[in-house]
Amino acid sequence: MTELSERPTTTAATIEAATSPTLHGSLVTPEQVSTLFNPKAIALIGATDKSNWSLSLFANLHTHGFDGPVYLVNPRGGVVHGEQSYATIGDLPDGVDLAFVMVPTTVILDILEQLADHDIKSAVILTSGFGEVGAEGAKLEHQVVDLAKRRGLTLLGPNGNGYINAAKQITPYGLNINAPLLRGPVGVVLQSGALASAVLGFSQARNIGISLLVSMGNEAMVTLTDAMRYLVRDPDTKVITLFIESIRQPEEFLVVAKEALEAGKPVVAFKVGRSQKGSTVAKAHTGSLVGDDRVIDAVFKQYGVIRVDCLEDMIMTAGLLAETGPLPGNRVGFVTPSGGACEIAADRSEDEGLEIPDFAPATVEGLKRVVPDFATVQNPLDVTGYILVNPALLREALAVVDKDPGIDVIVLASDLAREEPADPTRAYDMARGTADAIRACEKPVVVMGNTLVDITPFGRKVADEVSFPGVLGGIHHALAALGRAVRWSEFQRQHAAGRVMVPQAHAQAMTVDATPGSTWTEHQASAFLADNGVPVVPQELVDSADAAVAAAERLGYPVVVKLAAADIAHKSDIGGVRLGLTDAEQVREAFETVTTVGRNAEADVQGAVIQPMRGSGIELIVGIVRDPVWGPVLAVGLGGVWVEILRDSALRVLPVDRGQVLDALRSLRGAALLDGARGTEKADLDAVADTVVSIADLAFRLEERLESLEINPLLVRGSQVEALDALITWR
Amino acid sequence: MTELSERPTTTAATIEAATSPTLHGSLVTPEQVSTLFNPKAIALIGATDKSNWSLSLFANLHTHGFDGPVYLVNPRGGVVHGEQSYATIGDLPDGVDLAFVMVPTTVILDILEQLADHDIKSAVILTSGFGEVGAEGAKLEHQVVDLAKRRGLTLLGPNGNGYINAAKQITPYGLNINAPLLRGPVGVVLQSGALASAVLGFSQARNIGISLLVSMGNEAMVTLTDAMRYLVRDPDTKVITLFIESIRQPEEFLVVAKEALEAGKPVVAFKVGRSQKGSTVAKAHTGSLVGDDRVIDAVFKQYGVIRVDCLEDMIMTAGLLAETGPLPGNRVGFVTPSGGACEIAADRSEDEGLEIPDFAPATVEGLKRVVPDFATVQNPLDVTGYILVNPALLREALAVVDKDPGIDVIVLASDLAREEPADPTRAYDMARGTADAIRACEKPVVVMGNTLVDITPFGRKVADEVSFPGVLGGIHHALAALGRAVRWSEFQRQHAAGRVMVPQAHAQAMTVDATPGSTWTEHQASAFLADNGVPVVPQELVDSADAAVAAAERLGYPVVVKLAAADIAHKSDIGGVRLGLTDAEQVREAFETVTTVGRNAEADVQGAVIQPMRGSGIELIVGIVRDPVWGPVLAVGLGGVWVEILRDSALRVLPVDRGQVLDALRSLRGAALLDGARGTEKADLDAVADTVVSIADLAFRLEERLESLEINPLLVRGSQVEALDALITWR
Repeated sequence: MTELSERPTTTAATIEAATSPTLHGSLVTPEQVSTLFNPKAIALIGATDKSNWSLSLFANLHTHGFDGPVYLVNPRGGVVHGEQSYATIGDLPDGVDLAFVMVPTTVILDILEQLADHDIKSAVILTSGFGEVGAEGAKLEHQVVDLAKRRGLTLLGPNGNGYINAAKQITPYGLNINAPLLRGPVGVVLQSGALASAVLGFSQARNIGISLLVSMGNEAMVTLTDAMRYLVRDPDTKVITLFIESIRQPEEFLVVAKEALEAGKPVVAFKVGRSQKGSTVAKAHTGSLVGDDRVIDAVFKQYGVIRVDCLEDMIMTAGLLAETGPLPGNRVGFVTPSGGACEIAADRSEDEGLEIPDFAPATVEGLKRVVPDFATVQNPLDVTGYILVNPALLREALAVVDKDPGIDVIVLASDLAREEPADPTRAYDMARGTADAIRACEKPVVVMGNTLVDITPFGRKVADEVSFPGVLGGIHHALAALGRAVRWSEFQRQHAAGRVMVPQAHAQAMTVDATPGSTWTEHQASAFLADNGVPVVPQELVDSADAAVAAAERLGYPVVVKLAAADIAHKSDIGGVRLGLTDAEQVREAFETVTTVGRNAEADVQGAVIQPMRGSGIELIVGIVRDPVWGPVLAVGLGGVWVEILRDSALRVLPVDRGQVLDALRSLRGAALLDGARGTEKADLDAVADTVVSIADLAFRLEERLESLEINPLLVRGSQVEALDALITWR
Repeated sequence: MTELSERPTTTAATIEAATSPTLHGSLVTPEQVSTLFNPKAIALIGATDKSNWSLSLFANLHTHGFDGPVYLVNPRGGVVHGEQSYATIGDLPDGVDLAFVMVPTTVILDILEQLADHDIKSAVILTSGFGEVGAEGAKLEHQVVDLAKRRGLTLLGPNGNGYINAAKQITPYGLNINAPLLRGPVGVVLQSGALASAVLGFSQARNIGISLLVSMGNEAMVTLTDAMRYLVRDPDTKVITLFIESIRQPEEFLVVAKEALEAGKPVVAFKVGRSQKGSTVAKAHTGSLVGDDRVIDAVFKQYGVIRVDCLEDMIMTAGLLAETGPLPGNRVGFVTPSGGACEIAADRSEDEGLEIPDFAPATVEGLKRVVPDFATVQNPLDVTGYILVNPALLREALAVVDKDPGIDVIVLASDLAREEPADPTRAYDMARGTADAIRACEKPVVVMGNTLVDITPFGRKVADEVSFPGVLGGIHHALAALGRAVRWSEFQRQHAAGRVMVPQAHAQAMTVDATPGSTWTEHQASAFLADNGVPVVPQELVDSADAAVAAAERLGYPVVVKLAAADIAHKSDIGGVRLGLTDAEQVREAFETVTTVGRNAEADVQGAVIQPMRGSGIELIVGIVRDPVWGPVLAVGLGGVWVEILRDSALRVLPVDRGQVLDALRSLRGAALLDGARGTEKADLDAVADTVVSIADLAFRLEERLESLEINPLLVRGSQVEALDALITWR
C-alpha cells in the first residue's frame, strides 16, 4: 500500500469493458445495496494528508453530520488528518461496515481480502485503473468482482467518488461537498464523477434537497439499476434522477422503471450520447454500448421515464414533482405581475403541451373585483405593476383563480428576495403572505421566477423560515419542468391499469424451422406470417407460365407477378415485379420476363408469386429490428417520401399492446394521412394497430432467433389491412 | 396635480392603439434621442414620499452615481425625499434637460406645456392610462404626441419605467435597481416594464454589464427602433438586445438592423407571440399587430438578427458576443475536466451546428505529454480528475489546443469560486492562472460552467481582480449562445458584400392595368408573367373545339386542356382539367367537357387553355402573400404532401436575391428531392432560384397593388423551370 492514491474521475476505456460480467442481471441483492448505503462505522483505507481525495472525504464525514466512528488506515501508521491511524485493516476495531478504498491497483486484491477477513462487507473503491484503461485493467476488474462474489463483498466503483446519503448524513464522498448539504426528497444517480459536484451545487442554488447521491464509477458490481432500485424502495426519496451514459442491464432497468412507476416515484433521466459524436464519446468513457438513441427515447416513453436534456431541467423537474406529486391535468392558470412574463409563458406553454384555457365567468367577475380597472382580466393574468401600491394583489388574484373549475394547476410568478435588507421584516412578511396563500389553495400551485438565478443564502433563510414552496428558476425552465411533470402524471394515470409491459412478463417462446442466418423472401415469409395470424394478401407460388395463368384465374384479375428468388431481397429494383396484369397473355409474358430477369441476375429462381392486384391505399412499413442493447424493436412508418426522405418512423421496444401501437402511429409526422388527408380513405386505426400487434407478438415469441422482419408495404384501405410483401432474416 | 401617481407597468390595451401616429417612420431625430438619454439635470415631476416609484427613482439617481442636480416638483411644495421641493415647474432653475413625469393623466397636457415653456425638451412619462386602456386613452395619447411635436418635446413612454444609462451613470428609472449596477457593453431595449428588472438581475448574476437599458412603455413617440438606432451609434454599446412584443415600424426596423450589421454590432432579439395564445396576449398588451411569427423568423434570418427564446439566452448570447466579437468559424475544441461534460457538449454541439473535429496529430502528441496516461486524448477533451493532483492541467491542455490549425474556437469548462474561503489566496491564484492562460491564447476561448448558477459576489470579486473572462452559465445555455454567435459571425462575413437588401433600396415601381380587387386566372396571369420574364409553359386560349385542335397541333401532342374561367380558381376540383391528350379527337372531346363543366358551375367561361403536356418533374409552389406588418412575403415549397400535410415552406420578405432564395430552398425539409432523391432528375438550383427571384422582383415592383400571386406548380426538370399554372389577385 502506498500513500498516494492517484486516480482520475473518468478516463479512457476499451470495448473489453463491455464484456464485463455485469452486463446481465444484478450481482447484488437489494439488502446488500441497502447495507452499502447505510453504514454505522467507516474506515478510510489509504488515508493520507497528501491526497485531496482523502482530505475531502475526511472533512465531509466530519462536517456533514456522520455520527459513527471514522477510522483511518495508513501502512505507515502515525497521525493522519490530525488523528491516530491504524497500520493495517486487521488492527481496526470490530463493527466497521464500510471501507472507502483509495489504494493503488497493485494492492487492491490484497486489500479486499483483508476487508473480508475483518468482516467488512461493503466498500467504495475510488481507485481507478480498471476497465476504463484497457484490457489489463478489465482483467483486474474481473478478478476484483470474482473475489467480491467469493467473499460476499459489495463494491461500489471502482473509479467512482462514492456517495452522499444526505437523508442519513452519511457522506463517504471523495470530492469537497460545499455546505450546506441540503436534505430532501430527490435521489440522484450519476454515471459521472465530476458532474456530481455540479448537480450538488445546482440543487443547493435551487434550494432542492437530496436524499442520496451516488457517483457510480465503473459499475463493476453495483450498477445504476441497483442504485435506482434502492431509491425506489427508499422512504426518504420521492423522485429519482439519473445521469446516464449507458444502461448496462436493460431488462433489469425496465423492471425497476416499472417498479418506480407503480410506487408513484417519477424517474427523471438525462441520457447523453444522443448525437453521433456524443455516442462515440460516451462509448469511449464507459466502454459500453450506448444503443440507438431513438430506441432509448422509445423505451423511456413506454416506461414513463421523463427524459430531460440538461442538468438544470433534471433537477428542477425532480424538485417540482417531489413537491407536487402527480398533477391533475394540463390546464394551467397563470397569475403574474408582468405582461411580458405572460407572453413568454403563453409561448412556452404551447411548446410544452400545456393549455391556457379562458377563465370561467365567475373567475373573471371575481378577478375584476381584485385587480385594478385598467388590468385586462384574462388567462394568463397580469395583475399589473399595481402590486407596488397593493402588495397583496397577487395572492388575492391567486385565491380567485383557485376556485376556477376549468384549471388544473396554477403557476404563480413570484420569487424570493436576494439580498438581506437592513430591515428584513418586510421580506419575511411578504414571503409568509405568499406562502400562506399558496397553502390555502386547493389546486397545486407552481411558483416560478422570471429568470434562472440562484436562491441566495438570504432567500433560502426566508424560504426555510416561512416554508416557502420551491421556486422554479426562469420561465423557460419552469415550463419545461411543468410540461414534463404533467405528461408523467398523465402517463401514470393511463398506465395504472397495467399498460406497461416488461419483457419477462410476456415471453411465450415458439419454435420455427429456419436455418440460422437464412433469409425468407416473399412467399415463404408471407406464408409464415399468414400461418401465425397476420393478414397477408392471397398468393400462389408457381413454377411455370401455365401455372401462373391458372393461379391468376383463381385469384381474379388484375394480378401482380413477382419474381420468387430467395437471394433477391429487392426484386423491384431489377425489374422483377409486374403490376396490373389483366389477362392470361399478360400474365404469361410477365412470368417469362421476371424469371428471365432473375436468371440473368444469377439468382436462385424458384418461379414467381402471383397475387391479386390491390387498389391504392395507405402504405405502411412495419419492421422489427434487433437493437444491441434493447433487443427486438418495432418500427412503424409511412411509405414513400415519409420514410425515404423524412425518416418518419416511430419505434417501440417489444412487447407492445394496441395502445402503444396507436401512440406510435399517431406520433408520425404524416399521421394526418391515416385520417384521410389527401383524399385517401380514412384508416381504421384499431384494425391497423391490431395487425401491427400481431406482427410484434410473433416477433417477440421468436426471441433471439429473429434477426429482422420487414413488411413493406402493409396496405391499409379503411379497415382492410394486408401485408403485400415480407422479408424475414434469421440469426 | 395630485400627489399619488398610480400606474401599472403593463396593462390592457385596445386595437385603437394600433392606429397611433407612430406606426410608420420615426417621430424623433437621433439627436433628440441622444439628448433624451444624456441629460445633465433632472426634475422629478409629481415627486412624493407616498409613491414607491418616486422613492425608487430618487434613490436610483442618488445611489448609482448621477452627478447632476436632481430637482423635485410637488404642487404642495415642502420637503419631499428629505429635500426642499419646488411647487411649480416654472420655479425650477434653468438647465434642467429631462423631466420624469409621474402626474395623473388629467393634468398631463398642462404639465407638458409647462415643460416646454420652461425649455425642458425631454421627458419620461411613467403615468399610465393612455393607448393601453382604450379609445379615450388613445385619444389623449394622440393629443400628447401632437403637443410634443408642436412644442419640440421628446417623450419616452407613457406607461414606461424610464431608462438606465449605466455607461453614464444616469438612472431615471422608476423601479428599484439592486446594487451593484454593472456597467458594460450590452444595450437592452424592452417592450416590458416588469421584465426589465428581471433582465437587470440576471445580467448582474452573470457579471455582464449594461450600457443602456430602456423600458419602452407605449412608444407614443420614441420607439424600440429609435432606441435601437441610438445603441447602434452608441460607442459604449457592443451588442444590442431586444425584448419584443411587436415591431411598430417594420421598414425602419430593417434599416436599423442593417446599420447594426454594418457596424458589426449583433442584435439579439427575444420576440414573443410565436404561439397562438402568445400572439393574442401580446396583441392585448401592446394593442398592435404582432404579425405572422414565421415571417418574423424570416425577417430575422435575412437581416442577421439573432433570435433567442428565453431571457437567459438573450443576455448570455449578448455577453458572449460583446466579449469575443465575430468568431472565425464553427470548429470547436473542448477542454474540460469531466467526461460527462464532454458528452453533454457533444450532443449540444450537434444541436447547434457546431463541429467537433478530431485534433491534429501534433495536438494529440502535445496533449499526450500533458495529460495523464490513463486519459483518452480526443476532442472533446477530458483532462480527467487528475486536476486534483495537478491544478495546472487544464491550462496546459488549453495552450496545446490553441495551436491546433483545425480549431476555430476553444470552449473551456471552468467556473469561478462561489464562497469566499478562510484563505482566498488559492482561489485568486487559480483564477489568475486560468485568466492568464486564456489571454495567452491566439484563438477565442469561451468559458462555461457546468450548470447555470450565479456568479456570486465573491466570484465577481475574483473575476474583477484577475480580469477573468465572462463565464457562460451551464453547458446547455453556453452552447446555445456559442451556436448563435457562430452563425451570426458567418452571416456577417457572407453579407459583408451587400447581400442584405432593405426595401427602400430596391423599389422600382411598375404600372399594370388591373382592376382593383380582381383575380387573374391561368391564361391572363401566365401571359403577364411571361411578358415580365418569368418562364411559363407555352399555351393558347381558345374558344372553340376547332381552335383547340389547331392549338394542340401547333404546340405538339400530348397536350393538356384546361377550363378558362376567371371566376374559377381551382378548376381541377370541378373536373375542369384534362391531361395527356394524344390526338385531335381527345382534344375536341376534352374542350367540350371542360367548358360544359364550367357552364354547369355557372362560371364565366372564356373557353379553354391548351398547353403541351409536360413529363414528370419536381413540383414547387411559389407564392407571394401580403403580411399585415411586413408587406409582400415570398413562400416557396414543394408540392404534394410536403405542403399539404407538412406545411413545408420557407418564407422570405421581399426583396430577395438568388442567395436568399437558395437558402430558402435548402431549408426545406424535402430539399433532398431537389438533389435527385427518389430517382427524379437533380434540379438546377441556380436556375430555380433565378426564376423565383424573377417572380419575387416582379411582385416587389407591383408594390401595394398586388394582393397575392401563386404559381402552382412551378415544374422543375433539371435546368428546365416553367410555371404551369398561375393565379394573381389584385388589391
